[in-house]
Amino acid sequence: MTANREQAIRDNLFLHFTDHTGRTGADTPVIVRGEGAYLYDSTGKRYLDGLAGLFAVQVGHGREELAEAAYRQTKELAYFPLWGYAHPTAIDLAARLAEAAPGDLNRVFFTVSGGESVETAFKLIRQYYKATGKPNKHKAISRSMAYHGTSMGALSITGIPGAKADFEPLVPSTIRVPNTNFFRATEHADDYEAYGRWAADRIEEAILFEGADTVAAVFLEPVQNTGGCFVPPPGYFQRVREICDQYDVMLVSDEVICAFGRLGYDFGATKFGYQPDIITCAKGLTSGYAPLGAVLVSDKIMEPFRNGHTFMHGSTYGGHPVSCAVAMANLDLMEKEDLNGHVLRTEPAFRSTLEKLGDLPIVGDVRGDGFFFAVELVKDRATKERFTDAESHHVLKGIVSEKLFEAGLHCRADDRAEPVIQLAPPLICDQPQFDEMEQAIRYALTAAMRAI
Amino acid sequence: MTANREQAIRDNLFLHFTDHTGRTGADTPVIVRGEGAYLYDSTGKRYLDGLAGLFAVQVGHGREELAEAAYRQTKELAYFPLWGYAHPTAIDLAARLAEAAPGDLNRVFFTVSGGESVETAFKLIRQYYKATGKPNKHKAISRSMAYHGTSMGALSITGIPGAKADFEPLVPSTIRVPNTNFFRATEHADDYEAYGRWAADRIEEAILFEGADTVAAVFLEPVQNTGGCFVPPPGYFQRVREICDQYDVMLVSDEVICAFGRLGYDFGATKFGYQPDIITCAKGLTSGYAPLGAVLVSDKIMEPFRNGHTFMHGSTYGGHPVSCAVAMANLDLMEKEDLNGHVLRTEPAFRSTLEKLGDLPIVGDVRGDGFFFAVELVKDRATKERFTDAESHHVLKGIVSEKLFEAGLHCRADDRAEPVIQLAPPLICDQPQFDEMEQAIRYALTAAMRAI
Repeated sequence: MTANREQAIRDNLFLHFTDHTGRTGADTPVIVRGEGAYLYDSTGKRYLDGLAGLFAVQVGHGREELAEAAYRQTKELAYFPLWGYAHPTAIDLAARLAEAAPGDLNRVFFTVSGGESVETAFKLIRQYYKATGKPNKHKAISRSMAYHGTSMGALSITGIPGAKADFEPLVPSTIRVPNTNFFRATEHADDYEAYGRWAADRIEEAILFEGADTVAAVFLEPVQNTGGCFVPPPGYFQRVREICDQYDVMLVSDEVICAFGRLGYDFGATKFGYQPDIITCAKGLTSGYAPLGAVLVSDKIMEPFRNGHTFMHGSTYGGHPVSCAVAMANLDLMEKEDLNGHVLRTEPAFRSTLEKLGDLPIVGDVRGDGFFFAVELVKDRATKERFTDAESHHVLKGIVSEKLFEAGLHCRADDRAEPVIQLAPPLICDQPQFDEMEQAIRYALTAAMRAI
Repeated sequence: MTANREQAIRDNLFLHFTDHTGRTGADTPVIVRGEGAYLYDSTGKRYLDGLAGLFAVQVGHGREELAEAAYRQTKELAYFPLWGYAHPTAIDLAARLAEAAPGDLNRVFFTVSGGESVETAFKLIRQYYKATGKPNKHKAISRSMAYHGTSMGALSITGIPGAKADFEPLVPSTIRVPNTNFFRATEHADDYEAYGRWAADRIEEAILFEGADTVAAVFLEPVQNTGGCFVPPPGYFQRVREICDQYDVMLVSDEVICAFGRLGYDFGATKFGYQPDIITCAKGLTSGYAPLGAVLVSDKIMEPFRNGHTFMHGSTYGGHPVSCAVAMANLDLMEKEDLNGHVLRTEPAFRSTLEKLGDLPIVGDVRGDGFFFAVELVKDRATKERFTDAESHHVLKGIVSEKLFEAGLHCRADDRAEPVIQLAPPLICDQPQFDEMEQAIRYALTAAMRAI
């Protein structure tokens, strides 16, 4: 790295979710290049990208086809908004997503990001109920520790108190229910299905506490990211669907992470066999190569907006022509290389490779689905005793992160909820990369065990 | 347009801010190509892009240099987040923006859009005051009819009631003050400077009404877009700065439209000679070729975030590597072609060409700055009598929009506040395009006068 760049990091660049205290610039890794499943920093060091950038780069880095799609569309029509006008790449992509989506999610509202997709869904549902004579239905339910974005509407739905406290007051009338962290179950810990039923029923309880005529929506990820890849117990989403139908509440499947092959299907709702009223998505849609999100909307929700009501919402960059062109090329690549099939075929090997880590006493649980796994760390596996907050921070941020970095694995060591190491690699990975991830994590955890 | 695309517009695409009632698909213009200041639709019809897409395309459409920048960066590193890591294009662009910004706005937080820039500024200021021992300072003041974005935080600051009502309740504690619509002044209508002083003093009044220890920020555009290019009266921003200093309130210059040459300067604050605490920007930064925004932050606001406080905020696509590369190439082009100088040199000719429209009795006012003008329509110029809402909608949406479209001019006919036609063409336009705009508007307004 040049001295100028060190200085610019120190003096000018404001990194996201990052402590800048004492930052010199020289201490900040600079990623300069990507190729396939690997990243390279400014010193030439190689990393396995165990997080697909940030749950996004499904087809891997450096793909010529996507660079060409970006070039061609930029020359042809680099920018035009979707305000009253249309452009070809957005039209074609809308048709393609509507075709791929489960059930009657036939209408596609394009956004620029996952957070904007969540904002759009929240606003759309609020206006829907006002337009259909139920103006009091405006509240949103979401799960403890679930992340749904950082703009103030999406942040209000986010269930991570530490991500919200500094920015209160936010949008009122959002409510939290338990997630499906069965490893830490306090009820029905011996019966997975009963636990799932209990967790779903807590949504009904929240609706009744608030009054059904005030509740508009439930936002749920197919597999909850924060906390560490909480998969849905059998029957969970089916019971949630029943509850939503009973109380006329919209079920939003927030698939910003889980769509486009992350779980081996186009959409997580398809994998787990439930029908949402809205799917929000982004990330994998373009493999992160260009900012784009989408909101897939049911015929029922669209109905008033085809009959006299205008959805008073939009954005400059939602459905950007270049982003839509990149998305089309990305979906072409995913189909051509059958990445959904690859994920489904290799998921068992990925899982069993990670499960080898179970011989380390610090590993409490390995869980997840598709190419989306978490390793939860514990102080004592027999009792599932947790680290204290200070220990957890020391272990994860002080030792594990540093050792993973040293071992050349980019992934997430997260202590916002339970202390977990999270993996969501490009969907092109195979056994060699699974082994690399296992080895790097083993190296880091062994160092951590030695230090505590 | 193919039958498939017509059908996809009718059945699948959800356009932004658009009434879908009875939409057939065939009725929706499809923009397929851009070149310089011109756009082409699927029938081959040419339009002058009088709105730079949406206040964005400063360098015009189809620029090879930007397509190449997108291609190269996509191949090299298409995606990596700024969460704890950095990448070269974001580092270099941060240094460049800090250098260009007025005063000590030395720190750059990248976002994906103007709306996200406003969200970021709002959140940053709230956390700043909590971190510095003034946790009650959380409210934001903005101006009547001002647009600041559509995500719920930015929408709460937005001053357009009709854009908000369907989505209430929003973030509490935002307050409106008058804008600087001197054409409709009800106070000091005979003294522009006194009017400006009055408008600025209403911000002090709002601070005192709320309690200074609860007010965090004032969000102002250098030239307010909605309502029709309200320029600041002489001394307005200087008085606002005084008020902000007196009551310890942050002045945010929301330059999503006004930065990067729109007014002939890199930043609107520089043009009008005031020093904000934060500048929010987007659009022109990349000429719209790729989604990107930025928040430029003063040393004072950054101080706690260099000393123990972590700004708990970020996003997947903020500072996207390809977007930053496109921004660098765009700023290179703007410099090479001296587009700021071009705007300053040709602004008088643009203005006087538009002022020719003053011979039409329907034209009440022509106002603006740089390459950013509005033509306000009136029922009676002598009395400034307004059209009724129904008349305004009929004139603007029913006649003027259609005739402008017919004449091949893409611009905005807006009736959210005063009925205005707005122009913000690419900064490469010159006298031939000024004449074209004047002729097209003359044609549309002549038809409107005949019809009413």
